[in-house]
Amino acid sequence: MHHHNAGRTGIWFVGARGSVATTATLGLAAIADGHAAPTGCVTAAEPFASAPLPEFADLVVGGHDVSDVSMLKHAELLVEAGMIAPRLLTAAHNALERADAEVRHGYDPRDAEQQAGPGGARESQQAAAERLAADIVDFRDRHDLARVVVVDLASTEPLPEPVPEFTDRALLLAALADPDRAVLPASSVVAYAAILAGAPYAGFTPSASMALPVLVDLAAERGVPFAGQDGKTGQTWLRTILAPAFAARGLRVLSWAGTNLLGGGDGATLADPEAVRSKLASKSRGLQDLTGSRVTPLHIDNVPDLGDIKVAWDHVHVEGFLGSRLTLQTTWSAHDSMLAAPLVLDLARLLALADAAGQGGPVAELGFFFKDPWGSGVHDFAAQTVALADWVRTTAEAVAEAPRS
Amino acid sequence: MHHHNAGRTGIWFVGARGSVATTATLGLAAIADGHAAPTGCVTAAEPFASAPLPEFADLVVGGHDVSDVSMLKHAELLVEAGMIAPRLLTAAHNALERADAEVRHGYDPRDAEQQAGPGGARESQQAAAERLAADIVDFRDRHDLARVVVVDLASTEPLPEPVPEFTDRALLLAALADPDRAVLPASSVVAYAAILAGAPYAGFTPSASMALPVLVDLAAERGVPFAGQDGKTGQTWLRTILAPAFAARGLRVLSWAGTNLLGGGDGATLADPEAVRSKLASKSRGLQDLTGSRVTPLHIDNVPDLGDIKVAWDHVHVEGFLGSRLTLQTTWSAHDSMLAAPLVLDLARLLALADAAGQGGPVAELGFFFKDPWGSGVHDFAAQTVALADWVRTTAEAVAEAPRS
Amino acid sequence: MHHHNAGRTGIWFVGARGSVATTATLGLAAIADGHAAPTGCVTAAEPFASAPLPEFADLVVGGHDVSDVSMLKHAELLVEAGMIAPRLLTAAHNALERADAEVRHGYDPRDAEQQAGPGGARESQQAAAERLAADIVDFRDRHDLARVVVVDLASTEPLPEPVPEFTDRALLLAALADPDRAVLPASSVVAYAAILAGAPYAGFTPSASMALPVLVDLAAERGVPFAGQDGKTGQTWLRTILAPAFAARGLRVLSWAGTNLLGGGDGATLADPEAVRSKLASKSRGLQDLTGSRVTPLHIDNVPDLGDIKVAWDHVHVEGFLGSRLTLQTTWSAHDSMLAAPLVLDLARLLALADAAGQGGPVAELGFFFKDPWGSGVHDFAAQTVALADWVRTTAEAVAEAPRS
Amino acid sequence: MHHHNAGRTGIWFVGARGSVATTATLGLAAIADGHAAPTGCVTAAEPFASAPLPEFADLVVGGHDVSDVSMLKHAELLVEAGMIAPRLLTAAHNALERADAEVRHGYDPRDAEQQAGPGGARESQQAAAERLAADIVDFRDRHDLARVVVVDLASTEPLPEPVPEFTDRALLLAALADPDRAVLPASSVVAYAAILAGAPYAGFTPSASMALPVLVDLAAERGVPFAGQDGKTGQTWLRTILAPAFAARGLRVLSWAGTNLLGGGDGATLADPEAVRSKLASKSRGLQDLTGSRVTPLHIDNVPDLGDIKVAWDHVHVEGFLGSRLTLQTTWSAHDSMLAAPLVLDLARLLALADAAGQGGPVAELGFFFKDPWGSGVHDFAAQTVALADWVRTTAEAVAEAPRS
Repeated sequence: MHHHNAGRTGIWFVGARGSVATTATLGLAAIADGHAAPTGCVTAAEPFASAPLPEFADLVVGGHDVSDVSMLKHAELLVEAGMIAPRLLTAAHNALERADAEVRHGYDPRDAEQQAGPGGARESQQAAAERLAADIVDFRDRHDLARVVVVDLASTEPLPEPVPEFTDRALLLAALADPDRAVLPASSVVAYAAILAGAPYAGFTPSASMALPVLVDLAAERGVPFAGQDGKTGQTWLRTILAPAFAARGLRVLSWAGTNLLGGGDGATLADPEAVRSKLASKSRGLQDLTGSRVTPLHIDNVPDLGDIKVAWDHVHVEGFLGSRLTLQTTWSAHDSMLAAPLVLDLARLLALADAAGQGGPVAELGFFFKDPWGSGVHDFAAQTVALADWVRTTAEAVAEAPRS
Repeated sequence: MHHHNAGRTGIWFVGARGSVATTATLGLAAIADGHAAPTGCVTAAEPFASAPLPEFADLVVGGHDVSDVSMLKHAELLVEAGMIAPRLLTAAHNALERADAEVRHGYDPRDAEQQAGPGGARESQQAAAERLAADIVDFRDRHDLARVVVVDLASTEPLPEPVPEFTDRALLLAALADPDRAVLPASSVVAYAAILAGAPYAGFTPSASMALPVLVDLAAERGVPFAGQDGKTGQTWLRTILAPAFAARGLRVLSWAGTNLLGGGDGATLADPEAVRSKLASKSRGLQDLTGSRVTPLHIDNVPDLGDIKVAWDHVHVEGFLGSRLTLQTTWSAHDSMLAAPLVLDLARLLALADAAGQGGPVAELGFFFKDPWGSGVHDFAAQTVALADWVRTTAEAVAEAPRS
Repeated sequence: MHHHNAGRTGIWFVGARGSVATTATLGLAAIADGHAAPTGCVTAAEPFASAPLPEFADLVVGGHDVSDVSMLKHAELLVEAGMIAPRLLTAAHNALERADAEVRHGYDPRDAEQQAGPGGARESQQAAAERLAADIVDFRDRHDLARVVVVDLASTEPLPEPVPEFTDRALLLAALADPDRAVLPASSVVAYAAILAGAPYAGFTPSASMALPVLVDLAAERGVPFAGQDGKTGQTWLRTILAPAFAARGLRVLSWAGTNLLGGGDGATLADPEAVRSKLASKSRGLQDLTGSRVTPLHIDNVPDLGDIKVAWDHVHVEGFLGSRLTLQTTWSAHDSMLAAPLVLDLARLLALADAAGQGGPVAELGFFFKDPWGSGVHDFAAQTVALADWVRTTAEAVAEAPRS
Repeated sequence: MHHHNAGRTGIWFVGARGSVATTATLGLAAIADGHAAPTGCVTAAEPFASAPLPEFADLVVGGHDVSDVSMLKHAELLVEAGMIAPRLLTAAHNALERADAEVRHGYDPRDAEQQAGPGGARESQQAAAERLAADIVDFRDRHDLARVVVVDLASTEPLPEPVPEFTDRALLLAALADPDRAVLPASSVVAYAAILAGAPYAGFTPSASMALPVLVDLAAERGVPFAGQDGKTGQTWLRTILAPAFAARGLRVLSWAGTNLLGGGDGATLADPEAVRSKLASKSRGLQDLTGSRVTPLHIDNVPDLGDIKVAWDHVHVEGFLGSRLTLQTTWSAHDSMLAAPLVLDLARLLALADAAGQGGPVAELGFFFKDPWGSGVHDFAAQTVALADWVRTTAEAVAEAPRS
């Protein structure tokens, strides 16, 4: 099927040298070259396949990171751990080197403080955001890209305490200009940079990022489409599949308890109770909405020997007819990065479409991909599936009917 | 909310003294009298609650059975087994006695053969069907019911080998009239009786029942609405929730294996390999459609010490991004009759509506309730949920707009 | 088989009106009267059955509690919750009333503080212990019992910070005599009372109780046999079955993670993080010893809708041949009090034997029953099984050969 | 630690080019060269490590097979499937080639029939056994081995119907000599060959092999030690760990149901209902003995996409105190060959010791390794662990005290 050529499109990974970005980059190359099928990519099938999305082969990868371990090196570790087949690394070797050459030094508040030695000039958050935006614009220009989609894959941050700057633009701009203040969490500096660069944005982590009222307004005003928050990859996905079905059968969920075992970098990050708090908050929100019942706080255990594999156990206690009880237990085991990576590619393709269609602000229909959807209260996965398909059809038509620029 | 009074309506259970019918009858009384909430009844919530369905208190129970153990006695056993709370039995005691007094002797081909002694007149299947239909009509007339819905809950039969009589009405009628032939399986004699009585029909078991082309045609011609086949209560329900979600994420199911442990009467019946065959066929059909993949034959184990509890384990092996593998295991534990009973009440209420609206033939939108939906190829539970809600809204409007008789 | 008559023996439950003591008392009556088999009682089979243990019918129940809800009332709640069959409550009705009449007001440090109003005399811990001991001695004398075994079933306490009084008898006695000091946790006041009464003692909870060096010495000196600590009823039991088997096959446990869901009183108590700490410490100790590996901290979730049912999930990650990995998951579901109650009866019978044989101090071979065995480093359940059987044989012989008093 | 040098010892794999033998051979080389730890080998730790067993480096591999796919090729497939690390294949490359060069054409009754064309001489079973024995003796002589241990790892056969030749030596010898008769199943021809060669023998499959009375007698008479039957690698192992623990706690197992999912060659072989029958018979025997209860027939499903991974689910329903119920579910996932291979190396080392100590006939203490122990009724894994350790100490002493030849 022929369709509009959406043009070459950039994906700018924040956390470009992490597991998910590395896996997505390697996979993108393998798919583009025919070494792998796009299994796990929602956009590979209808009705997405016939929409004017950028082709896999037209996606170009760059990004920010504060790590010095290259994407290639990280990929080698994933091969050694048995997660990625050696032949795929061989096939994607050059693509990983090319992408890694496009990685620029990211924003790290601790770095900024270190720079502020005697005589050194500390970088204000405004300056940092402009630097990051310039990296993105430069990437777009050098590669002659129609647009660049920014995807936040950086480590989960603690949620910030709310301050007036989060809701008042003037206060925010004043704070950003002050080199002695760091009012925004790092993820929000990046989101702000995306707005400055006019780049569509996806918040795949539970960090604050774009979820500050002042940034939401600014993005909408500048016509920047964005989607988030916190990729719905595994256990939460499963919960938003099951919970609506219980409701549809008139069954009453009494409790929904669960445990997550994970190793890898994510396991270590989430061993930090502050970071866990933001993760757990977004994990339970949907379930609470869907069941109207008590959701036992989810546990996350760091089990380093599991590596990138995440194992999740859920125990659902349900009241049925005449007070009878039923239980459902689910055990889920998967490589976490392998769940996230194809969704990240999907998001880049779909946000490119949203941008081409002139949409700005939160794209509610992309809630399909997220634990805590921006712009939408819908958590029911089946309903999200229908809504996403409807959106892509409508948006594709809008693009098709628009006068070509 | 006020709405049309749908009138007093009969439920005619085939297998009226079995676990499901007994539980449904006891539960109906408890709900009607306010001793229990209608948990597990789909029709208790919107959009069903505002449709002109017969009220729980307006449902009157009767039925056929070949057993001499009364509903009350059966209910006492279920209380002893810990399945039903003693206070509910106390509350429903009289209702169970009243319903049991409406149980008539059912059709049992083995009985018919016994009658055929020297000088005795063997009952032809036509005569048997007419006798059963007369029982239903008599029940309707005596209780001044707007209609009677027949629900097949009898023990699972082996599937019959196809014969020309199943597709040719003239051949069938000739065979039915011959006392020396028993061309129809017992469940189909009952379905034929429902047609003769003009009674809406639900086939809740995997037995052939209405699923013979000749009966389907006849029901449609006579304007008898019907729905089936094989109640989707537990494990299959779960499978039709999960499988579409894998597809929506572009994940490829490699295998779906599972085991069912059950005791009770059902466990013993299904220990008969012939009966199991019909059960297993309808259990896997939907999953095969939904995943397009190999479904390992489901096992059913008879584990008498589990009583009415059914435990089901599933192992799903899925291919994800770049050939990575994920596994999902589910373990389900519930009283089987407690899952089935509220659905049976729902079906009676909804088929009464279909009948009031003048619908005849298979009601495809009731596929929501069945493993192997008559008149529909849709197995996706979320899609069925939407379709059922749409149907009830449309049908309720049609009834509301119709001139009252 | 004939054997010594061990004489009538008392069981003195601390926490006599709780679930475990109530269940044990009800069950004891049902077993003694032939209404139930002693399933779950280790001592009902050989080699215990032929040892001179007190007969079930010769056990007399009394105890301490600070609750006003009678054992009968508590038993009724357990029947309503579906845990105990109504016919057993009927059978044990009188026995529960008799036992409840033997319940005396226990020691509650908060009560003592309340008494200390102006003019009121605060009870010193020495006075409290003497009061408790007098209750026990009075019970023994009134019922003409050969001995009384004290079993601690009270709510789990936080572990106390160590102080010099825990290791220095003179310091302790001085502190006990001071009405303004409460140096011992309540469980240890009770353990001290048991010593004063010369009563064998079982510490079935993780509370400090007898586990203070100064009390251990005193019990040994007075010839009081005791056993503990923290009943090994379910998940920990399972772990000490499995872990030695991995070791015996040369397999290396990499991690052992798990979650406990429980409701009931225990769930609520253990929602107190301080109390959980003592529970979790004793739960993991054995596993760490057995596997030599990292045991992920066990989670305990309070899930009130589960009532007395405890559900436990474990995930064991194991390294096998050539670095291959295997996983074992276990899910356990049981009424917690039903696991504990028969063990409590076993302990009373076995400590009575130890006392009859003149043993004093920790009875290491009773480690079979405990998460954190006093006097023993053995956690391997199979080894404990052999050791217990050997001990009962040897001790029974010693009693048989001793001159009758 | 120094000890007797047990001398270079041969392992003769029947089914040398299958997964288990290939894995064992590769692993043996990796361990001997220090590229891998002997994880999963029982004999690597005390009390085995100080017994005079042949060193890993002193084991030499040869065998019979009817396949033309070399061990090296098979190992490459296992690496591709992600079961074996590439670096280990590299390390063991030469060892696999050397071992494969020692593989001789095995006994295949179908081959024998093919040879029997016009003018061709059909090979009698006696001739076949002598040919196989000669291969073993030749291997021993060429490599100057102290002894050769034969291990049956060939595909599972249907169990033969009993015939008089299985119990009467004269009848058997007559039948063996007749080229037109094939009275023994292939596995028993091999076992007979081991006897003829004076080679210790391990029956690691459920095939009949040595389990014919006439062969048992002959082996004992010739002083050939042997052990079997059917390696207890995974699910059955787990069952014989758990079942004795329930008994030790006085708990009554009501039912034990389970399912095995497996792919690979074994999955395909066991899809043959006849072969399954022998496998299932040996799997349930121990459990039935240990629990005295009904064991629901175990299911084995062929799930090709799982490859060599075996997933096993068990559901145990147990009666506890006062008729309360508890359930335990276990899910096990492991590479089957990785479980079997180290046990096979252990068996070779231990049977070498038995032979050095002059033991003949069934070595009951090796029942530790088997689902259906020859010469022993003990299934309890903990008891087997103790018995095996005792045996190795005693036998090592016997060898130490014997005059050196």
